Amino acid sequence: MISGKNYIGNTLSAKGLKTYKTFNPVLNTENNSTFTEATSEEIHAAVNLATNAFKQYRKVSGAKKADFLNAIADEILTLDDELIQTYCSETGLPEGRAKGERGRTVGQLRDFAALLKEGSWVEATIDMAQPNREPMPKSDLRKMKIPLGPVVVFGASNFAFAFSTAGGDTAAALAAGCPVIVKSHPMHAGTGEMVASAVLKAAEKTGMPNGVFSNLNSSGIEVGRQLVKHSGVKAVGFTGSIIGGRALLDIASKRKEPIPVFAEMGSVNPVIILPEALKNRADAIAKTYAGSVTLGTGQFCTNPGLILGIKSEVLTKFINCLSQEIVKIDPSVMLHPNIVGAYEKNKERALSQVGLKVTADFDREVKPNYARQAITTVQGNTFLENTTLHQEIFGPFSMVVQCEDAVQLETIISKLEGQLTGTVISDNEELINYSDVIDALQNRVGRIIFNGVPTGVEVCPSMQHGGPYPASTDSRFTAVGVHSIQRWVRPFSFQDWPQELLPKELKDSNPLHIVREVNGKIIIP
Amino acid sequence: MISGKNYIGNTLSAKGLKTYKTFNPVLNTENNSTFTEATSEEIHAAVNLATNAFKQYRKVSGAKKADFLNAIADEILTLDDELIQTYCSETGLPEGRAKGERGRTVGQLRDFAALLKEGSWVEATIDMAQPNREPMPKSDLRKMKIPLGPVVVFGASNFAFAFSTAGGDTAAALAAGCPVIVKSHPMHAGTGEMVASAVLKAAEKTGMPNGVFSNLNSSGIEVGRQLVKHSGVKAVGFTGSIIGGRALLDIASKRKEPIPVFAEMGSVNPVIILPEALKNRADAIAKTYAGSVTLGTGQFCTNPGLILGIKSEVLTKFINCLSQEIVKIDPSVMLHPNIVGAYEKNKERALSQVGLKVTADFDREVKPNYARQAITTVQGNTFLENTTLHQEIFGPFSMVVQCEDAVQLETIISKLEGQLTGTVISDNEELINYSDVIDALQNRVGRIIFNGVPTGVEVCPSMQHGGPYPASTDSRFTAVGVHSIQRWVRPFSFQDWPQELLPKELKDSNPLHIVREVNGKIIIP
Repeated sequence: MISGKNYIGNTLSAKGLKTYKTFNPVLNTENNSTFTEATSEEIHAAVNLATNAFKQYRKVSGAKKADFLNAIADEILTLDDELIQTYCSETGLPEGRAKGERGRTVGQLRDFAALLKEGSWVEATIDMAQPNREPMPKSDLRKMKIPLGPVVVFGASNFAFAFSTAGGDTAAALAAGCPVIVKSHPMHAGTGEMVASAVLKAAEKTGMPNGVFSNLNSSGIEVGRQLVKHSGVKAVGFTGSIIGGRALLDIASKRKEPIPVFAEMGSVNPVIILPEALKNRADAIAKTYAGSVTLGTGQFCTNPGLILGIKSEVLTKFINCLSQEIVKIDPSVMLHPNIVGAYEKNKERALSQVGLKVTADFDREVKPNYARQAITTVQGNTFLENTTLHQEIFGPFSMVVQCEDAVQLETIISKLEGQLTGTVISDNEELINYSDVIDALQNRVGRIIFNGVPTGVEVCPSMQHGGPYPASTDSRFTAVGVHSIQRWVRPFSFQDWPQELLPKELKDSNPLHIVREVNGKIIIP
Repeated sequence: MISGKNYIGNTLSAKGLKTYKTFNPVLNTENNSTFTEATSEEIHAAVNLATNAFKQYRKVSGAKKADFLNAIADEILTLDDELIQTYCSETGLPEGRAKGERGRTVGQLRDFAALLKEGSWVEATIDMAQPNREPMPKSDLRKMKIPLGPVVVFGASNFAFAFSTAGGDTAAALAAGCPVIVKSHPMHAGTGEMVASAVLKAAEKTGMPNGVFSNLNSSGIEVGRQLVKHSGVKAVGFTGSIIGGRALLDIASKRKEPIPVFAEMGSVNPVIILPEALKNRADAIAKTYAGSVTLGTGQFCTNPGLILGIKSEVLTKFINCLSQEIVKIDPSVMLHPNIVGAYEKNKERALSQVGLKVTADFDREVKPNYARQAITTVQGNTFLENTTLHQEIFGPFSMVVQCEDAVQLETIISKLEGQLTGTVISDNEELINYSDVIDALQNRVGRIIFNGVPTGVEVCPSMQHGGPYPASTDSRFTAVGVHSIQRWVRPFSFQDWPQELLPKELKDSNPLHIVREVNGKIIIP
C-alpha cells in the first residue's frame, strides 16, 4: 500500500534518485518501504499546482470545506489498523498512543469543520455608510478574514498524526482556504503517505481542486529550504527544534517577499513548587512529576525540564523522592536512533557542567534506542551564571534548581527564554505572596498551569500553545485549537462594494447567520 | 516652548553632540529650534525605563488606560494654535489639514479609550473544566490577550499627527498595555516634542508609571537601528518607505529574539476603469482622479499611482482629459526639500523608461519645494516587461496602463506587488464580467473600493489598512482602526487558575460585563 512516492496533487511521482527508509526503533531495524525524495522539479510542480488550486479553493464555501475536512477524518479512520501499525513501526510508540493521537487528529479536523459550518470565525465587521455625515460622507466598509495562499507544513518527529500530514497546521490551513504542501517528516514517511492518501481521497470525494494538497518526501533539509524560498508559498507551519524552526524563519525573512513562519519550537516548561506545597505533599508531587517527565519518553514539547524551588529541607526531600520515583519507571523507547543519540549527547553535556549534581541516572542496561531517564539539581547562582543549563534536553530529563529565596526565584524566571508553559504548585493561598514571581512567569510563557503538569495539551478554543520566542516564532498566534486558523488568514475590506457581489458573510441579509460586529456592536443572529 | 531635547520618560535630556533643525518648505528656510539626537546611553535609558514601566503598566485596568488615552487627547487639544502652527511650519501643510489630522488623531485616541472601557477586545475565551470526562478529565482553560512589552514607534514623514508621536501605532500600543518609545521623525521634531509633552502630562495626571512613554530625537537611521536591536524592545511600528521598513524588518529578524515589525510601506494603489464606465463618464472620472492624484501633493500612501484600462478610444479620451485636468490644478508644496527632490528624481527615472509617454507635466515655474504633477501612459506589454514602472513614485504622479484586453488586465494585476488598495470603476453591472480580474485584484490588495478613490482612509473597525508585502510587512494586521491593537498583544491561557487570582476578564462572574466565548458559544452579557 505504501508506494514511497511523492503526491504532487493527486498524482504519485518519484523522479528523484535520493531514497531512504524509515526505522523501527523497537525492533532496531529499518522498515521495508523505500521513499524517494522530491526533486526541485517536483517541488515546483506541487507549488504551481497549489497556486492554481488556490484560485478556486479560496472561494469554496465554509460548508463545503467542512465536508472536505470531515471526509479527511473519515478516510483516516478507514485506514484503520494498517495505519496504526505503520505509525507504531515508524515511531516506536505504543498502539494506545497511536489510537489516542489519531483520535485527537480526527477531532481537530472535525473541530475545524464545525467552525466552518458555524462560520463566525471570519470576524465579519461592518460599518455602514453615512452619506450625510459632515464634513465628509462616510463610505460603507465591510471586513472579513480571507486566506493567505499556499501554506507549507512541516511534519513533526514527535507527533506523526497530530502535528504532521493532516495535523493541526494542515487542518487550520485547509479550513482557512489555503492549499497545503506537506514536507513529510523522514522518520515517519510511510505514515505520512498513508494519511496523504486519505486527504487526497477526501479531496476527490468532495470535489476539491487538484493541488489543494501535496505531500513531498524529504530525507534532509533541502526540500524544506526550497519550499520556503519558493515565491508561490505564502506561509509556513513548523513544529520541531529551535535550530530547525529558526533556519526556516531566516530563509523566509530573507525572501524578496518575506512570509509568515509559525514555528512551535523548544521549551523547558518551568515548574515552580512553592514552600507550603512542598511541606504538605513533596512525595505526591514527586510521584506525579516522575510520571510527567517520563511521559512519552519525555518527547513532548511541554515536558517539564526545569523545576524550581526555594532551598530547604523539604526541597531536598522532594529531589530525593523524585529521583527515587523516576528510576522505578521502566525506560521506554525513543522515536529514532538519532533522537536517542541526541538525548544522550545533550544529557552528557549537561552532566559535565560545573555545579550540576546528578541525583538519578537510570544505570541498568537498556535495550537499543531506549532512553535512560535522569534527574539533576543545581544551585540558583550556578544556574543563573550558566545559560547552557537553560537549554532544552529533549527526552526524559529534568533539573531541579534550588533558589536562595523568592527574589532569586523571580530573577531566574525573568532571565529564562520564552516558554510554552509555566506551572505553579502551591497550597493554602501561598500564591498571593508570590505575585512578583507569577508576573515574571506570565511574561515568559504562553500558558500558566495551577497545581497540574504541563504535559497534556487540551485541544479547545481557550488553549494557547505557543509563547514568546523561542517557544514559538510569533507569540501572537497559537498552534492548537481553532483559533490557530488566524495564522493563515488576513483581514480584507470591501468599500462601497455592491451588495450582490459581496461575500455572503458581509451581505446585509446575513444569509449565513453568523455573529458579526455591525457599527461597533456585536450582533448575534 | 520647544526644548529640542529627548524625553526619557518624563525627563528632558540632551546628552548628545549631534544636532539638527527642521525645515519650513513654504518659506524655504530652517525653523528656529535646534534638536539634539539621542545618544546610545539615552536610548538604553529609555528602553530600560519602558521595561520597568511595563511591569506596572501591563496590569493597569482598561478603564484607567482609557482615562490616560482620553487625557492625551485633551492635552493635545490644549496645545491649541501653537501646535497647529508648529505642524504647519514643519510640514508645509495648510492649517485646515493640520486641524483635520489633529481631529483624526484625537479621535483615534478616544476610539481606543472607548474600546478599553467596553473591554471585550481581549477576546476572553473560556472552556470550563469537565472533571468527569472520559478517558481523561478536562482542565479549566481561560484565554485572553495580554501585551507584548515595550513597542518602538517610528514617526511618519507624511502624517506628523496621525501616524507619529501619539498617532495610531502609539494609541494602539498604549491601549494594549505596552509602553511606547517614539523615534521622532526628523522633519517634524518640534511637533513631535510638543505632542510628547502632551502624552507625558496625561501620563502624570492619570498616574501612569514613568517610562510608559519616551520620545527620542534622531536625524538619521542610527537611533532607529539601535532601538530595534535592543533586547528590551518587543515590537516595532513603522509607516514610511519600503527601504526603511524593510531595513527594520531585517534588523528585527536577525535578533537573537526576533520581534514582530508592523511596517506600512509603499503602494501604487491600482485603479481599474472598466469600459462601460469610461464610455459613460470619462470626463467626470478624469476630474475626480486629477483631484485624488494631487490631494495633499500626492503624499498619501493611498495615492492612485496606477490606473488601468482596456485600450480604446474612450480610454484615450480619458487620458487626455485627466492630463488636461491635472495641469489646471495649482501645484502645491511637498513636506521637505528632500521629498520634492526624491519625487523629481523618481519622476525623471520613470519618464526616461522606453515606451512611457508623458501626457501631462506641469511645465510652468513653481516655487521652491513645490511639486510639478504629471500623468504618463504606457502600453500593457511595456508595463509587463519593465518592473521599474511598477514602483511607487511618492508625489502627484500617475500612470495609465493601456491593456490589450481583459486577459492582459488580469495578468498585469496578478504580477503587481502587494498593495494597500485596489479600486474598480464600473457601470451597469459590467463588473460581473470581470470576476477573474477582481479575484486577481483581491489577491494583491488589503482593501477594494467600488466607484470611489483610494485616498481617504476612514478610521473605523472595518477598515483594513495594510496588505500583502510590500504594502505591509505582515498582511495579517491593520494599521488603522481599533483592530490594530492586535499587533501588540498575544493570547495567554490560564489552566485551573484560582478564581480569585484570575484577571477580571476571565472570572466566572464576568464583572466587566464583556462579550466572551464560553464553552464554544459567544455570550453577550
